[in-house]
Amino acid sequence: MNDTKQSERRRAFHREGDAFCWDGVDVLEYKEAGSAPFKSVTRSVLFEEPELGFQWRYFEVGAGGYTTLERHEHVHAVMIVRGRGTALIGTGIHPFAEFDLFRVPPMTWHQFRASDEGAMGFLCLVPSERDRPQLPTQDELAELKRNPDVAAFLNRR
Amino acid sequence: MNDTKQSERRRAFHREGDAFCWDGVDVLEYKEAGSAPFKSVTRSVLFEEPELGFQWRYFEVGAGGYTTLERHEHVHAVMIVRGRGTALIGTGIHPFAEFDLFRVPPMTWHQFRASDEGAMGFLCLVPSERDRPQLPTQDELAELKRNPDVAAFLNRR
Repeated sequence: MNDTKQSERRRAFHREGDAFCWDGVDVLEYKEAGSAPFKSVTRSVLFEEPELGFQWRYFEVGAGGYTTLERHEHVHAVMIVRGRGTALIGTGIHPFAEFDLFRVPPMTWHQFRASDEGAMGFLCLVPSERDRPQLPTQDELAELKRNPDVAAFLNRR
Repeated sequence: MNDTKQSERRRAFHREGDAFCWDGVDVLEYKEAGSAPFKSVTRSVLFEEPELGFQWRYFEVGAGGYTTLERHEHVHAVMIVRGRGTALIGTGIHPFAEFDLFRVPPMTWHQFRASDEGAMGFLCLVPSERDRPQLPTQDELAELKRNPDVAAFLNRR
């Protein structure tokens, strides 16, 4: 068994400054800058298994940061593994802490926000073949914000 | 949106005594007693997504416990989320700690052991449709133990 094979079997966790990192796993931009609204998010692809049909990612959100408000046909399976925050799933607002689980059903608006106190990180499982996320139109955003709790969630910047 | 839908979206983490648990997720026996050698292991199915083709499980291993030494055609994607221990993957012996990753290739002998100091827990992603694990024959076990490090690993009880 050579070194290459061994390194494929184990990827050790470490920290670089405050960030969660893994040996041999690049910390990527979350999305192309300007392509969608988000704040302080990085992306690490932990397992890419096209023959098994899934991609297992880690997203890290800095204190006060947030992922893009979006929806899509594919389902998200999520586990929080670091920090605290609040999630919008549909019109439900869910405070969360380490190891809480979320399932985002198809075509459901969702956004994950870190608390202002520190970084937040979550695992997210998605199918390898998946549709592109949709951003809300102005009308859809206005409709969402008719719910005052949702408006308060979305208006935090 | 009714309560049922909300509970499908979020499953809060909590502890029952020392054990990691999630709302609405049963803590199951690892395997039928006597069906295979193991010690102090429970299983929780966090996400069951047959239409997406994967099952996301959490396994908890008590101090000094171990999973079954086995192999199978399907790949395991693993993240340690609690405690410390040592893994055998093929003939490689890997000490591990929280958030380390493992990929177990097809038909590769593997076993995860908790340290004697405390419980260990890991996430394990597998395809929904998968072959049954194989146990080593006496000959295969003898062959594995020709490697003294592997023998020392396997002989701990």
